[in-house]
Amino acid sequence: MNNKIYFTPGPSELYPTVPQHMQEAMAQKIGSISHRSKQFQEIYARAESGLRELLQLPDEYEVLFVSSATEIWERAIQNNVRRESFHLVNGSFSKRFYETAKELGREAQQHEVPFGQGFDVESIHVPETAELVALIQNETSSGACMPVEGINRFREKVSADALIYVDTVSSLPYPAFDYAKVDSVYFSVQKCFGLPAGLGVWLVNDRCMAKAREMQEGGLSIGSYHTLPALLEKALVSQTVETPNVLNIYLLGKVLEDMNHKGVEAIRQETEAKAAQIYTFLEQSNSFSPAVQKPEHRSKTTIVANSTVPASEVNKHLATYDLQVGSGYGKYKEAQIRIANFPAHSPEQVEKLLEKLGELG
Amino acid sequence: MNNKIYFTPGPSELYPTVPQHMQEAMAQKIGSISHRSKQFQEIYARAESGLRELLQLPDEYEVLFVSSATEIWERAIQNNVRRESFHLVNGSFSKRFYETAKELGREAQQHEVPFGQGFDVESIHVPETAELVALIQNETSSGACMPVEGINRFREKVSADALIYVDTVSSLPYPAFDYAKVDSVYFSVQKCFGLPAGLGVWLVNDRCMAKAREMQEGGLSIGSYHTLPALLEKALVSQTVETPNVLNIYLLGKVLEDMNHKGVEAIRQETEAKAAQIYTFLEQSNSFSPAVQKPEHRSKTTIVANSTVPASEVNKHLATYDLQVGSGYGKYKEAQIRIANFPAHSPEQVEKLLEKLGELG
Repeated sequence: MNNKIYFTPGPSELYPTVPQHMQEAMAQKIGSISHRSKQFQEIYARAESGLRELLQLPDEYEVLFVSSATEIWERAIQNNVRRESFHLVNGSFSKRFYETAKELGREAQQHEVPFGQGFDVESIHVPETAELVALIQNETSSGACMPVEGINRFREKVSADALIYVDTVSSLPYPAFDYAKVDSVYFSVQKCFGLPAGLGVWLVNDRCMAKAREMQEGGLSIGSYHTLPALLEKALVSQTVETPNVLNIYLLGKVLEDMNHKGVEAIRQETEAKAAQIYTFLEQSNSFSPAVQKPEHRSKTTIVANSTVPASEVNKHLATYDLQVGSGYGKYKEAQIRIANFPAHSPEQVEKLLEKLGELG
Repeated sequence: MNNKIYFTPGPSELYPTVPQHMQEAMAQKIGSISHRSKQFQEIYARAESGLRELLQLPDEYEVLFVSSATEIWERAIQNNVRRESFHLVNGSFSKRFYETAKELGREAQQHEVPFGQGFDVESIHVPETAELVALIQNETSSGACMPVEGINRFREKVSADALIYVDTVSSLPYPAFDYAKVDSVYFSVQKCFGLPAGLGVWLVNDRCMAKAREMQEGGLSIGSYHTLPALLEKALVSQTVETPNVLNIYLLGKVLEDMNHKGVEAIRQETEAKAAQIYTFLEQSNSFSPAVQKPEHRSKTTIVANSTVPASEVNKHLATYDLQVGSGYGKYKEAQIRIANFPAHSPEQVEKLLEKLGELG
């Protein structure tokens, strides 16, 4: 039996109801049902409607299931960029989206600020020629975030045809977006949704769909099985193109029911309260300090701290109390710790974590 | 509680040990561990070595995990075909691989025989220019198979540089391949491995790797995160590029331990014994008959029968006994049934199925 509480930034602690949902899934033999059955269509529809309710997603958005957020980077470029994309980069994951565009032969431009910094939205100039503008709402590697008000400023900064993509891999359902101001939002389920990994969720509006069709009709290859038109065709009948991760779609629907029962407002308030507690601790600590300087750029969901104690030592100490945080990303592996503050983490667990971190001075 | 036994050709009955492995996975919190941890590397290595043992896979083959066999079709074309591929087509899935190549802008050629027929290997001429030759060992839609001896004839039929791919989505570990005679073999875990869907396994030899590198070095785009070189780089340290379906890799390793404990020879013999029983039943039945005419082309693992009783009626009858078979594929939906004969299906379950099918006349 493993009693550890995982504050790692994904995979992370499972939402507390997941083990019982998994038990029910096994009892109902969800792993054996056909992905072309009515039973699967109901599972798909439940996950979709749960997500629409939680995120207050407008009708012009489609909910598409793929295998990871990493896959979405690739599909986004294939389906929505003929020639040029533009990327805000301030960490390893936003950088990876930019690199994906280049690997796929596009002319990718980047506006880069140092790791751990947020963006000065006012000063960013988006080229007229950018067809896709990649914003990073929450950089999982560095803990820097872009407030929703900043994201909402981009529609007036980009050309009329440009599509605005928002990486929310480790933040949704916390940010309350104005979905009319963006065109696509995506995440993977092993972060804030507290599920096992193996499912990416791609929210796209009709403008993304139209662009993909236009490229396809113009004779361009936009991929094979996971093109936007192919994904949509199946999504409209609550199915997927290939045999998907049925079990995870089932679990997502169940967890969304639980989250909707609690209510997104309560989740957001709890997220803020726990984040405030964590940042207050970091500011008062002798061993830790917030890695992101400007308070308005500090993520509420993936909180990164500079640490005078090596991250491996921090986790050795925490392990005696069945607790674990994430180490820093890449070259910050030992110099930083990352604390996930997801809906799965209860206020009591956060309190215990801070108490034990406090023992390190 | 669902007590139904699923003879559907995938997703299908889970291997009988899966529920207990899943319970253990939940107790050990496998869904929460980092995919960059030593613990995950051990899980990956266990699945890989279990597969090498079961399939007697030579060292020059790599074991790569992606999200589905459908994804493998796309990655195969992107990584191993500059200009032209050649496909044996005798059903919906082999057709789909051919179409994938065309969607990705390649000049795909096909050698097509009617749905439900096997191939006369002797008469097949493979163009000199074909860089990838797609064989279908087992066509899940029609129940036609190609004996391993037929597959072994292709090396002498193709040009020295051509790569031979074998679709074994719904047959491995049954066929005992001579891996030196082919270059890539692939499957998904929700068929004969008795696992929940959401994981594709791609076995590739060094020749496939070399071709991908050659294309990449020649300036061609071979994809982004799931190129063969990117997959290999991580596989060599028992990791994956993106956060994968960790839970399924864990379950695969566990089921492989169980299968290796039983032994691949025992599994193969049991598969043949059950298949013989099913075909004998079909030949003696008034309502059913084998859909594939030539006995040597009849699949041992996905057995398709013409049915005078509509498939939906067959399943209505079987449902009263907690049994289910697959309906026919596509336009054969009502005119055929498909019976999965996977390692998860015990001889006793097969006997019960045949007894109840027998009640239909």
